[in-house]
Amino acid sequence: MRAILISIGNELTLGQCLDTNSPWLSQQLAAIGVPVRMHITVADDLNEIRTAIERAAREADVVILTGGLGPTEDDLTRSAMAAAMGVPLVLHRPSLDQIEAFFARRRRTMPEANRVQAMVPAGATPIENTCGTAPGLHAQLGGAEVFAMPGVPREMMVMYERAVRPALAARARGRILLTRTLHTYGAGESDIGSRLADLMQRGRNPAVGTTARQTVISVRICAIGDNPRQARDLLEADAAEIRRRLGELIFGEDDETLAEAVARLLKAGGRTVATAESCTGGLVAKCLTDVPGSSRYMLNGFITYSNASKVRLLNVPEELLARHGAVSAPVAEAMAVNARRISGSDYALSTTGIAGPEGGSVDKPVGLVYFGLAAEDGCEVQERRLGSELTREEIRERAMKFSLNLLRLRLLRTGSA
Amino acid sequence: MRAILISIGNELTLGQCLDTNSPWLSQQLAAIGVPVRMHITVADDLNEIRTAIERAAREADVVILTGGLGPTEDDLTRSAMAAAMGVPLVLHRPSLDQIEAFFARRRRTMPEANRVQAMVPAGATPIENTCGTAPGLHAQLGGAEVFAMPGVPREMMVMYERAVRPALAARARGRILLTRTLHTYGAGESDIGSRLADLMQRGRNPAVGTTARQTVISVRICAIGDNPRQARDLLEADAAEIRRRLGELIFGEDDETLAEAVARLLKAGGRTVATAESCTGGLVAKCLTDVPGSSRYMLNGFITYSNASKVRLLNVPEELLARHGAVSAPVAEAMAVNARRISGSDYALSTTGIAGPEGGSVDKPVGLVYFGLAAEDGCEVQERRLGSELTREEIRERAMKFSLNLLRLRLLRTGSA
Repeated sequence: MRAILISIGNELTLGQCLDTNSPWLSQQLAAIGVPVRMHITVADDLNEIRTAIERAAREADVVILTGGLGPTEDDLTRSAMAAAMGVPLVLHRPSLDQIEAFFARRRRTMPEANRVQAMVPAGATPIENTCGTAPGLHAQLGGAEVFAMPGVPREMMVMYERAVRPALAARARGRILLTRTLHTYGAGESDIGSRLADLMQRGRNPAVGTTARQTVISVRICAIGDNPRQARDLLEADAAEIRRRLGELIFGEDDETLAEAVARLLKAGGRTVATAESCTGGLVAKCLTDVPGSSRYMLNGFITYSNASKVRLLNVPEELLARHGAVSAPVAEAMAVNARRISGSDYALSTTGIAGPEGGSVDKPVGLVYFGLAAEDGCEVQERRLGSELTREEIRERAMKFSLNLLRLRLLRTGSA
Repeated sequence: MRAILISIGNELTLGQCLDTNSPWLSQQLAAIGVPVRMHITVADDLNEIRTAIERAAREADVVILTGGLGPTEDDLTRSAMAAAMGVPLVLHRPSLDQIEAFFARRRRTMPEANRVQAMVPAGATPIENTCGTAPGLHAQLGGAEVFAMPGVPREMMVMYERAVRPALAARARGRILLTRTLHTYGAGESDIGSRLADLMQRGRNPAVGTTARQTVISVRICAIGDNPRQARDLLEADAAEIRRRLGELIFGEDDETLAEAVARLLKAGGRTVATAESCTGGLVAKCLTDVPGSSRYMLNGFITYSNASKVRLLNVPEELLARHGAVSAPVAEAMAVNARRISGSDYALSTTGIAGPEGGSVDKPVGLVYFGLAAEDGCEVQERRLGSELTREEIRERAMKFSLNLLRLRLLRTGSA
């Protein structure tokens, strides 16, 4: 059983939107044993959509369309499916009732335009949309199962999970492909690669590969099994082996961020943190407070962007600023130590550096950042040259990660987790 | 002249990466009068790639491939093109010299595997890659021009601009499509829609449409002309008319953010700002300091996440916290007024609210946020219920935008710009 995905919309062929539906569906389908052979994107054009459906139905067992189910004249997926099937569109009364009920719940009258969303190709089955007005469609075309879903990602995802996945999973006889990603921080891609070289050999199952994104090296495991149990076992065995080899370099899996990993350790140990940021300008605190329940560990933060504010808010001695400059190890230390003392927190993180694009010099180039981590037993200071060729955004992002990782390693090593 | 784009890679058909190349190329091609008819994504499979090339070359005048030009066994674009053209691969000596020179500049020896990147289908022309090792390819296939470029976005973009665009622009006879987006904040999509109803009629040129994303309503203008001048004139006329109608609701164009708009006004007026954030946890300060040169206007920020820190860092009276709670208008006012006084800034922004998912009550639901804007002549406080159905991230994002917009409007109205 192989699938072809068809995304529909002028906004896609004009390049005004990224297609996130096809990647999401590809992963979902692979996990139930329906590999995706091809993605096709076409404009809101009846003939283009019809031709794409007819061709895909000849070349794949499953065809999934997204988009073009709205109430406007641009929305041609229903008509294109009817044309491909050689049947007329007919009114599906229960769908019309559902659409009217959708508006009634919002205390609105259904606009007449939405009536067209209850039209289905004769012989096709509508799929209920629990999040919006456009029902999906399910039909047979030649030997292929054809599904049409809305283009709005959330509506599509819910519809896939409620209706499409169950329908396909029951019949899929293909091999199951499961993936997991382990995220590491602190080593380069070639270092990670050499530690995992035997697992990364071509043709091995699971397939193991690395990708680098803004200093986070992610290890992707892709296991194929004849059934879900076998795929799961292969995946778990590799994940355990990679965890054993990479140890504390790994901070999380799949969607987990470095901030979430730090939050988990802080909560587990009942510890608190404060921040004192110059070049990152609030980014470290923002990431620490991205996590629900962050009031349990985040006490407060200082953004001391100007020299005067380092003196006024954090009591950094003026003499220190004059002697070493704001971007220096002694200032990073004073910022962290004083932020911890003023806040009454277990830890304090500080950053001071040159995010660019201006403000660099030969001695202190763009990308130079000092990091402080103050704790009960003193203050650790690190210097990093993050690279003057990077953008301001990259430098700030990397500085944030380095700062959070300093705290993560400290929490791991003090066994507070 | 119409184009079909073919993206190549297992990481795409497996859904592990988003295809950003096709949207970028679609916009670029539209702007030189080469509309894109279809995007196709196929796996690293010789037959699939070959079939896609052959079919696209029959159905379009321009075929642009991205990906599959690397040095590994997975990289099959060269072979697929040769197969589609019915010719062998031959060594192109100048390309080999360029690849060797690329490694030499990095003080490395060229790995033997990279030699294959200098192989080209007989009759095809290599395109120099100034950012990486993989040369591109240009060939005729039937009536179509076929270009193959690397999948790495930066390499692809530079190659497109240096070689592909000039080659196509010289021959394109199609109509020119130019787009511009005006971003608004402060009105709903239906309000904007009704003010622009006549411009948004179907079939009009320029086409004008709106999209909503996290409370920013963007107005997209899409002008088609027989030549660049005509398209540009149509675009400018609509942009001016929309600016006239929407006035200060418009904060920027295309890539400009609300923070950049605020930064522009602060710099123009020589004004400074400080922040005092509770629920946004540093996000407002982070956005203000995203902008290069932000040290000219951003003095410092406070993140007072706990009640104790509101008292300690910002001198918010304990009595005020006890009487009204931390999420209240008087506390938002005290935070802003005191942050301004302590910082010595012209303005101070404050936020205090419930970002959720926990911490809400009947009186003070998740999404309730108070905003302060302190200035020389007093403090403005606003209350907003951003919606308890929103995620934590959405609430924080919307609160940040509301806060920045308060300052933007103040700066506009005091004529400091």
